[in-house]
Amino acid sequence: MTYCVAISVNAGMVFCSDSRTNAGVDQISTYSKLFRYDLGPERQFVIMTAGNLATTQASMAQLKKDIRQKSIVNLNTVLTIGDAADYLGDVSVTQQDKHGGSKSAFSATFILGGQIAGSEHRIVMIYPEGNHITSSKDTPYLQIGESKYGKPILDRILSLDTPLDTAALSSLVSMDSTMRSNLSVGPPIELVVYKTDSFSLQSYYRFEEDSEFLRELKKSWDNRLKEAFHKLPPLTLQYS
Amino acid sequence: MTYCVAISVNAGMVFCSDSRTNAGVDQISTYSKLFRYDLGPERQFVIMTAGNLATTQASMAQLKKDIRQKSIVNLNTVLTIGDAADYLGDVSVTQQDKHGGSKSAFSATFILGGQIAGSEHRIVMIYPEGNHITSSKDTPYLQIGESKYGKPILDRILSLDTPLDTAALSSLVSMDSTMRSNLSVGPPIELVVYKTDSFSLQSYYRFEEDSEFLRELKKSWDNRLKEAFHKLPPLTLQYS
Repeated sequence: MTYCVAISVNAGMVFCSDSRTNAGVDQISTYSKLFRYDLGPERQFVIMTAGNLATTQASMAQLKKDIRQKSIVNLNTVLTIGDAADYLGDVSVTQQDKHGGSKSAFSATFILGGQIAGSEHRIVMIYPEGNHITSSKDTPYLQIGESKYGKPILDRILSLDTPLDTAALSSLVSMDSTMRSNLSVGPPIELVVYKTDSFSLQSYYRFEEDSEFLRELKKSWDNRLKEAFHKLPPLTLQYS
Repeated sequence: MTYCVAISVNAGMVFCSDSRTNAGVDQISTYSKLFRYDLGPERQFVIMTAGNLATTQASMAQLKKDIRQKSIVNLNTVLTIGDAADYLGDVSVTQQDKHGGSKSAFSATFILGGQIAGSEHRIVMIYPEGNHITSSKDTPYLQIGESKYGKPILDRILSLDTPLDTAALSSLVSMDSTMRSNLSVGPPIELVVYKTDSFSLQSYYRFEEDSEFLRELKKSWDNRLKEAFHKLPPLTLQYS
């Protein structure tokens, strides 16, 4: 399983992903699911992947190959983030079709985000079928993989005005809730924070299994949540 | 969709269910999914249902018919909660087999809880195939239906020593998180609180759509959660 979340607010974008892959509980490995495409001062992309590892690896390899071979369509030539999403959708569908199509066990889902000079930054989620959706004012985030456990906190905290630090922290709390409930989501946790118009992906963090920060966040959030619960107006019941 | 949660702690049991059913988003109705079987001072049962409404209604009708007709096996004759679960499993499988079996769209899942004089109270979840599991010291609750959104708070709050009021409140907070994220889970919310050895199901509450209590709980939990989040140690990031 996988959990990746991308957030797009006015101040910039946040990308957060886990690194656990599994084929059954007795075959668990660590693979990065977050790919940074630093293509100079005018275009920056981040891609996160979920689904079949063979398909996502083949798709990422194709993207790199297209850049290297200067194919007509590649991440250096696409005009918009939407075009980049169309292109990644085509690459993904081509890979899946080799082994059974988008309804098969080899399907994959992606989040692509970035900024191209002259346009605003944007995040897009690409379905196995190759079509895609973007985030909105009311829902300034996208998730792929095991999305349910970590959704409530995002709904409660995020709006377009959320500062970048707060957005990044909410993605880590969302990840923490997911890891607590689903064993197949796990560290290392990768985080990229992109500041609007910076055209830099240098703000990259990787939290390992034994990360002091992750442990503190987990403990702190657990304590704060319990406090919050015990501060609710008590339910006074009549027993017969 | 449906969300039902049952909690079994030393002090007693809690049963909480929503009442929304849907067959597509344009066909939404209200049906109770919580059934109380008050069978006198020596046996009390509560059953909650999820899955195909035709199957769950037919199963509940069969249980009542078996009591009325004094069938050899009925809720008045079973010796243990485990036997009651076996019996309900058989009834459910028989109903499902009429229309396509447990793998079909007509499958159903149940939670049964109760107490029979001379034994401890217990809760059991019955799978569509008729087999069942009970709760444990470490996981003193069972869920059916849309279980993911409301699971984290239960994991954080509940233990066998949790007072009954607190357990009941946690079930309502769990329900609130689920309703917020899944439109097909909704009020009226039904709640039964059973005190150990009371042999009474009188502690029954029904919260309607316009319930002042539910609205206050929702608002209060939302505010407390935001407070909790903003009290976390801040994430200080270096931007390039």
